[in-house]
Amino acid sequence: MFRINKLTDYAVVLLVDMARTDKVRAAQQIACDTGVPLPTVAKVMKALVRGNLVISQRGATGGYGLARPACEITVADMIQALEGPVALTACVETTDDACGLETLCPMHGHWNRVNKRVEEALRTVSLAEMASGPIEAFGLPLAERRAALARSLS
Amino acid sequence: MFRINKLTDYAVVLLVDMARTDKVRAAQQIACDTGVPLPTVAKVMKALVRGNLVISQRGATGGYGLARPACEITVADMIQALEGPVALTACVETTDDACGLETLCPMHGHWNRVNKRVEEALRTVSLAEMASGPIEAFGLPLAERRAALARSLS
Repeated sequence: MFRINKLTDYAVVLLVDMARTDKVRAAQQIACDTGVPLPTVAKVMKALVRGNLVISQRGATGGYGLARPACEITVADMIQALEGPVALTACVETTDDACGLETLCPMHGHWNRVNKRVEEALRTVSLAEMASGPIEAFGLPLAERRAALARSLS
Repeated sequence: MFRINKLTDYAVVLLVDMARTDKVRAAQQIACDTGVPLPTVAKVMKALVRGNLVISQRGATGGYGLARPACEITVADMIQALEGPVALTACVETTDDACGLETLCPMHGHWNRVNKRVEEALRTVSLAEMASGPIEAFGLPLAERRAALARSLS
């Protein structure tokens, strides 16, 4: 089945952690708290800042925080920040190297309808909902939680 | 963005052609009519028969036809016949090699909700709708149509 990529998977884990922590933290601290490697945190945060989901504050007490409340960030926003517009097939993605066969192709236009429905579905689930879930997982000893997350994402 | 795989893309092209033709045809004829290579047609038909979307009739006048009306086949059915259940992340897919960390993982259960919404969205578009589209594409000279489809899918 079609999958989100590994970096998007990490992004959702980090955003869920940010939603639950709800304070500005340095990338190093986020890496430490979640068990996600620092270079990955840095890469993901860059994409999330670019996608206007996360704000970056400079200075000694700076770091990363959510740009808006978790209930106003959707799964569609998260996936699109990392992967661009919903496009189940290569041919309908907005790209410079369009195949040029749109007028010949009997599929043209139809996949856009499907993509739109999928995007609407992804808009119905918020980060706040993704961050609700089993408290006990977040209450585990840090070392155990970091190891578990690292293993599950490796 | 997450994508359906190439074989699924072919499957949808073939099913759309079957919906428009609406008669039993040999794999060879379907390959000839669509421009999709015969080994690919054979592989896709096998999966579609297994997924109960297509029936196979033996004999001199045998071949492949839709198992039910195009309005009763959804995009979800088509994708699932080729790729299995909707699973945007590896960890929630029904698999024998489960990670075993479900009770630790703060994401557990949440992706299932997202997958369910995506599947529901894919159920709202039928093969009949996918097969409606621009008549002119289907009315093109066969050679041109075959070449265009082959190029767009290569």
